[in-house]
Amino acid sequence: MNIEIIAIGNELLLGNIANTNAAYMSKELAKKGLQIKRHTVLPDDEHEMEEGLKQAWQRSEVVLLTGGLGPTCDDVTRKVLAKFFHSGFVYSEEIAKELQKRFGDKLGSIQDQATILDKAKVLPNQIGTAPGFLFTEDNKILASMPGVPLEMKKMFIDFVLPLLVKKYEKEEKQVESHFHVCLLIENTVDPFLRELQAKYSDVSAGIYPSTGTLSIHFSSKNKQSLEECKKLFLQMFEKYVFSTTSERIEEALYIEMKKKGKTLAIAESCTGGAIGARITSLSGASDYFLGSLVTYANDWKEKFLHVNKQTLDTKGAVSKETVFEMIQGLLQETSADYVIAVSGTAGPLGGTPEKPVGGVWLGICKRGETPEIAHFRFPGNREVITACSVNYLLGGLWRKVAFSTNSFDKETLCLMS
Amino acid sequence: MNIEIIAIGNELLLGNIANTNAAYMSKELAKKGLQIKRHTVLPDDEHEMEEGLKQAWQRSEVVLLTGGLGPTCDDVTRKVLAKFFHSGFVYSEEIAKELQKRFGDKLGSIQDQATILDKAKVLPNQIGTAPGFLFTEDNKILASMPGVPLEMKKMFIDFVLPLLVKKYEKEEKQVESHFHVCLLIENTVDPFLRELQAKYSDVSAGIYPSTGTLSIHFSSKNKQSLEECKKLFLQMFEKYVFSTTSERIEEALYIEMKKKGKTLAIAESCTGGAIGARITSLSGASDYFLGSLVTYANDWKEKFLHVNKQTLDTKGAVSKETVFEMIQGLLQETSADYVIAVSGTAGPLGGTPEKPVGGVWLGICKRGETPEIAHFRFPGNREVITACSVNYLLGGLWRKVAFSTNSFDKETLCLMS
Repeated sequence: MNIEIIAIGNELLLGNIANTNAAYMSKELAKKGLQIKRHTVLPDDEHEMEEGLKQAWQRSEVVLLTGGLGPTCDDVTRKVLAKFFHSGFVYSEEIAKELQKRFGDKLGSIQDQATILDKAKVLPNQIGTAPGFLFTEDNKILASMPGVPLEMKKMFIDFVLPLLVKKYEKEEKQVESHFHVCLLIENTVDPFLRELQAKYSDVSAGIYPSTGTLSIHFSSKNKQSLEECKKLFLQMFEKYVFSTTSERIEEALYIEMKKKGKTLAIAESCTGGAIGARITSLSGASDYFLGSLVTYANDWKEKFLHVNKQTLDTKGAVSKETVFEMIQGLLQETSADYVIAVSGTAGPLGGTPEKPVGGVWLGICKRGETPEIAHFRFPGNREVITACSVNYLLGGLWRKVAFSTNSFDKETLCLMS
Repeated sequence: MNIEIIAIGNELLLGNIANTNAAYMSKELAKKGLQIKRHTVLPDDEHEMEEGLKQAWQRSEVVLLTGGLGPTCDDVTRKVLAKFFHSGFVYSEEIAKELQKRFGDKLGSIQDQATILDKAKVLPNQIGTAPGFLFTEDNKILASMPGVPLEMKKMFIDFVLPLLVKKYEKEEKQVESHFHVCLLIENTVDPFLRELQAKYSDVSAGIYPSTGTLSIHFSSKNKQSLEECKKLFLQMFEKYVFSTTSERIEEALYIEMKKKGKTLAIAESCTGGAIGARITSLSGASDYFLGSLVTYANDWKEKFLHVNKQTLDTKGAVSKETVFEMIQGLLQETSADYVIAVSGTAGPLGGTPEKPVGGVWLGICKRGETPEIAHFRFPGNREVITACSVNYLLGGLWRKVAFSTNSFDKETLCLMS
């Protein structure tokens, strides 16, 4: 199976946008067991595009092209395709009428956009103005789609994807499986995956670390082997796998909190509001999330959370004692069933030998139980330290709610100190 | 000038992530007048990578490689580079010591990551564990960097970019200029840019809209024309240009707040903590930021901000009156010089004909002055609506602090309603 994607556009090579079109098509194809071999981005330049197209058409069975179909001077795709496939141009009354119907007479580019390639099948653009083109030759397929993501997506899903699924329906496909885990680091999971791979050579495994979470990916053409790997992986790491479909820990937390009908209040310091922001990035968060007191200044910790001035003066804001009192303050001031709190040094400034940059205290408590307060040392810059703090706190809370176990666990949490 | 980027990684070809690394490097190079000819993404597969590398090395003077340098089973870059450049491996005591110093004995991959290519110059990884490699041969350069964005970025900026700038210092380059503006939409700026381009045909201009901010980009080989365009643009839009170097409005705000020696308190509802998170993404935010009361539940608005129950019952949480009382509550409960507040419907659920999804009330007040409270209707999904709310509120505050003018302005704010 040789499928590749070529995107045309200087805006991609100037770095003004990332090639999210390629990511989108790849993901949709992967869901159907179809693998992409290569992504390429080429400039709005006839010569470069011709060269790139020639190579792609040699090595691949399917070439998916995006961009360069518009009416402006820098759009060269149609011209290059005409030359490459020895195709002429023809004016389509039908497309012209359709464009006029949808966009009215104001659209200046009707004449241009209704001029199509006579050797290609037209792929209708139901959102914008530039039609797509489909060439089939020697059992190969080239689909040329617009670069505007919304237009490309609709055209791809409606016309191109079904074609590819049909083309490869008889081929043996990869099956894939994802595990999204929290509170573990790469080095904890890697030895186990190596063992698995030694045992199941027909399964390929990958670890994709994010900030404070990991995604583990298995794929194989052998369904049986894949199932066995999945089973063994789950036996080992079940209580860290928060999802097999979404890398967003806040989704897993939402599901658990809603299932149990519990509420949450937060006290943030170094994360500055990032925990609340993550939780509320999901619609429906108000089902369990009451709010967050972002007490960045010390006197806010005193005023809103009743942290003792003496604690702040003697132990400092970044201390087990302060986080403990933040937790107590939340329990006292709110009705929440669960409360979580964080205080740490996100850097790059403000670190000391005793309280280094990346040192963070995380606190989690179910009302009526003893708070768990643990210290972590996250490596990385301010952004990473903040994201890790958020993910570890949400991960720890998810574990407590889902399994009624401790959030943090000395044996496996390598960053705990 | 032939520079290209190759990213290695199945996660890219599976569409799990977009190739933001390529976009980042391309943008940084474009700022220096250096243009990228091609991006390629290849799988974690030795054969494919060898083939791709061979072609790239033939056609380009510089190949920038990202990914596949880690210690896990799926990382093949070092092996392929060794074969391609006929390089051996050597164990570096120095790197091993450095890794041990930074990550302690817990890091299981020291042995592996300290094993380097003997024909390459090592590019230090100051964030993560995998060193990069630099090969120079026949006046060509290949730089192999990690795929983890933060690690790649630091390595690229510190070591690779300066090398490329030096390599091409004698070539004629584009000069470029950026303006980052807040509170304006594309349709307000576009007609003016078209006029400019009609007058200065040797300058190319582009508008890159983000969520609630715009970046305007001019480039030209004619420095004189570029300067004239910049001057005309500034004459028109000066009080919206928050930066020429950074698209982060929180940086402009930080500079102004620090200059004036003022403090800030926030009351958030629909943004869930995202405003505080953005502000504290900058080190030193504690110089002016006191905290944020994220009152997601209505009874938190009553308890912490003294919003009247009657206001909430009769006008609703998303109303001018509620935001006004949130502002009053902040002024009363805190010592802040400036206070800002937000309440809106981020969707996708919860919209009504009177209070549609995307409708957001933003409030800004300098202590002692009348609060400004304006209603906006942001198009887009939950993520976009939240980001627009944050950027408009920070943009409005920046304007008030920087110019002592009104934050919002009927004539130019097309999304105000």
